[in-house]
Formats: sequence, structure tokens, C-alpha cells
Amino acid sequence: MTIYEFFRNDRFAALAGVELSDVRPGYARATMTVTPDHLNAGGTVQGGAIFTLADLAFAAAVNAYGNLAVSIQSSIYFHRGLSSGVLAAEAKAIKVGASIASFEATVTDEAGETVATFVASAYRKDVTLPFAKP
Amino acid sequence: MTIYEFFRNDRFAALAGVELSDVRPGYARATMTVTPDHLNAGGTVQGGAIFTLADLAFAAAVNAYGNLAVSIQSSIYFHRGLSSGVLAAEAKAIKVGASIASFEATVTDEAGETVATFVASAYRKDVTLPFAKP
Amino acid sequence: MTIYEFFRNDRFAALAGVELSDVRPGYARATMTVTPDHLNAGGTVQGGAIFTLADLAFAAAVNAYGNLAVSIQSSIYFHRGLSSGVLAAEAKAIKVGASIASFEATVTDEAGETVATFVASAYRKDVTLPFAKP
Amino acid sequence: MTIYEFFRNDRFAALAGVELSDVRPGYARATMTVTPDHLNAGGTVQGGAIFTLADLAFAAAVNAYGNLAVSIQSSIYFHRGLSSGVLAAEAKAIKVGASIASFEATVTDEAGETVATFVASAYRKDVTLPFAKP
Repeated sequence: MTIYEFFRNDRFAALAGVELSDVRPGYARATMTVTPDHLNAGGTVQGGAIFTLADLAFAAAVNAYGNLAVSIQSSIYFHRGLSSGVLAAEAKAIKVGASIASFEATVTDEAGETVATFVASAYRKDVTLPFAKP
Repeated sequence: MTIYEFFRNDRFAALAGVELSDVRPGYARATMTVTPDHLNAGGTVQGGAIFTLADLAFAAAVNAYGNLAVSIQSSIYFHRGLSSGVLAAEAKAIKVGASIASFEATVTDEAGETVATFVASAYRKDVTLPFAKP
Repeated sequence: MTIYEFFRNDRFAALAGVELSDVRPGYARATMTVTPDHLNAGGTVQGGAIFTLADLAFAAAVNAYGNLAVSIQSSIYFHRGLSSGVLAAEAKAIKVGASIASFEATVTDEAGETVATFVASAYRKDVTLPFAKP
Repeated sequence: MTIYEFFRNDRFAALAGVELSDVRPGYARATMTVTPDHLNAGGTVQGGAIFTLADLAFAAAVNAYGNLAVSIQSSIYFHRGLSSGVLAAEAKAIKVGASIASFEATVTDEAGETVATFVASAYRKDVTLPFAKP
């Protein structure tokens, strides 16, 4: 199984239309094309949709080392609202220790403007994941 | 329009199966029945689904004052994984100032165990929302 | 050695005038009497002073279980500025797992108004601390 | 008054030994030479000292635009402990809006290793600060 196939089993990310496009240990990129289903009652992309996009990129980047990492905490900063277009999240390792890993993901729109900043920590377990290390 | 009707227009929360059950200024409760669509590749509820549940409760509680509040930042702490059952989020005001409001939401499972802790800040705009204040 | 003696060795907390007044596993209370030394350039208590107060309460509460816990992440929300008086921080466990623990601390002024909300996660190591468990 | 003179009035940052070395709108750098007074009971630099360093860099960078900005929220991630040396914090604007600004600060040691990641939001008030804009 590839890591892409593994993360295709993330049903909630699939529901949100998130697609993983590039993964290696410590790095991942994911995209989401905004549709009316992503909008909140005010007509802009719901924070939970943006979180889900960033979180999948983070999950892929931290799990790409091959052992299961579970999320401890995430902080997300919303910088601008938008209602259409393609959003991209790039997750990058800040520090990957034996037990704790911290990552940052930046969400941008098609013009390259920063839409959200996401920082997260995960706990790395002694559980080997069922995919070939990318 | 009631505030419940207004938030039924949150398309992403609806996609995630989030239902608002109780709202007043400074307080809201929302629930989400876990289905396979909420699970991540590891088989537990995706962080984005839990975030969306907590965020809708927060959005309802802070917008219930009648003027538009937009999210600045959220921190979410994940305390335990789970794969089924009904999750409930209760959002409560910590401080509601003229411009900035801070809220906390606790997500619990059916046994009353805390699943996640969510804290968020919003910026309150001079924009009146189109519902009767609950 | 008591846990109070142990934390008296926190030199930075001592510099900041933080005093630990009550500690048990999962709970701690600390106070700080505001002096001119705590103020920022705008004349209100510096965020770092409030953070130090909350962080010491958190450190005491999470280390009171007897094994070393190191901080992974903290989020702090500042609700009101102030320039004098006694601040108190109460830290309480949200979830204490085998490896990861999450705590919340609320900082209040003498009138009981909430000044700041602090949430933090720590990694619990297999290192026994040199004090009698309170 | 210069912005350096203004921030020399941050008494708590001065107590913590924080020195501002470079400021312009949207950017600031500050340093802190670790002394025994910065250590916690475990013998490593206290989180509150690192927070104070990062927070002063953030405060300088966001206030350098000339109008008063007050901190709403900060998240800090601690990546490694240390007991000596010079720490440097660099704060950079992520987004500076009319009312809300978000910044990131990275704290590094002398070897350039990342010690902490700090992200913060501030509310920008209509209050002009008493220094010449750098």
C-alpha cells in the first residue's frame, strides 16, 4: 500500500474534498477546491473545512516517517475569508523528536495569499503503519 | 428567521452532520452522531470533524448576541480517540468584549468523558445578523 | 524535600514573584502580587508575567504526580489588562494519560474577574522527581 | 522617543534580560542571555522566560506600525530544553489587517536550532504610540 492509498481511507477528509498531492517524511501538500458545501452560514469557507485541509497535510507529513502519530493539539489562525477557488495546505516539520513532533501548515489561496496558519503537535507511537515509506 | 434556521445554512457543518440543539447569547450546544464518514485513515474520528462540531457551537454562541463575529484563532486539544457514538460540544463565553470575544467549548462522548477542549477568539463586527436574537 | 521546596528552585518564577500556595496531583494554585517590575511599556502587566504565573501552577499540578512532565505547548488568551493587585492562577487537569497530560489554568484578579485563560499539554517522562508526592 | 527607548520601559522584559536589537514595522529581533535566573526547578530555561522573549519581539514588531496593538492570544510550542547560551527571537508578520494582526516568532539557540515556535494575534487600537515610527 502507498501512503496515498492509506490516506484515501480518511473518510472525513474525502467528504471535505481534500486531496493529498505530495508527501514525504516531514512534508506534505494537500488541496481542496471550494464548493458551496464548504461554506458557513455567512457564505465563507467554514473554519472546520480549512482545519480539515491543514490537518490532513499535517497527518500525512508526520505519519510519513512510518510510525503512527496521533494529534495532541492544534492552533489555527484565520487570516482572511473566501468563498471560492482552490486552497492548498503545505505542512512542514518544525521538530520531529522520538516521542513528540511539531509541524506547521500554511493554507494559501490561488493568488498565493495566506488564508490560515496551523501549528500542531503529535505523539509518535511505537506502531508501524501499513504503507511503504514514501 | 431564527438563529437555528440561520445556522442551518452552514453547509459544511451540515455535511459533517452537526446539529445545533440549544443557543443563547454566550452559550450553545451542538451534537454529531459519529458515522464511518467521520473517521480518519486510522479508524478514529478525524480531528477536523471534532473541530467542526466545536466550531459550530462556538459560532452560534458568539453570533447569538446579534452582530457578526468572525473567528480569529482556535486551539484544540485532543484527549482521546473514538470511533462511534454521539459527540456533544458545549460552548461557553469566557469574555465578551466590545470587539474581541473568547469562548471555550468542551466536546464529550456519551459517557460524559472529555474528548476535546477547544478555545477560540473572535472579532465582533458592526454587522447585524438577520435573525431574531434568541 | 516537599514539592513546595522543589518549586522554590524555579528561579524564573521566583524572579517574577510567583508563589505556589496549594498543590496536589492534578491541581495547583499560585499567586503573584503585581509590582512595577511586572509592567510592559504600555503600563499593564506583561503577557510573559501572566504566562509565568499560569505556567508555574501548571508545572506544579502536572509534576505533582511524581514523574517529570515537560511542556509541549501552551495557548494563552488575554482577556483584560491591569496594572496592580494580586493575580491568582488555578491549574486543573483536563486529562492525564500515561504519556500526555492536558491542563487548563485560569488567571483571575482580586475581584474574581478572569484575566487570562491558559491551556497546556505536557509529555510525561519515566523520570521520578525528588520530592514526596503531595 | 525612539521605539527602542519606548520598549526599554517594558520592565518585565528588562527583568528577564530581554534586549531588542532590530525593529521595523512587521519585524523585530530580540535576544536574551541565559543566566541561572532563567532556569526552572528542573534546571532548564523556564517556559515563561522564553515566552517573554518571543512576546517582546512580537510586541515590538506589531506596535512598530505606530498604533497600539494589544495581545489577544498566543500559542507557544517548546521544542528543546536548554540551560545556557544566548537565545534569539525573530518575530515576523503573517497578516496585518486594519483591526487584527497575526505574527509568528521563532526562538533559536546559538547553533541556530529552533527552541520554540510562537504564534500570536493582536487587536490594533486607534491609539497612536509616542515614538517615531522606525
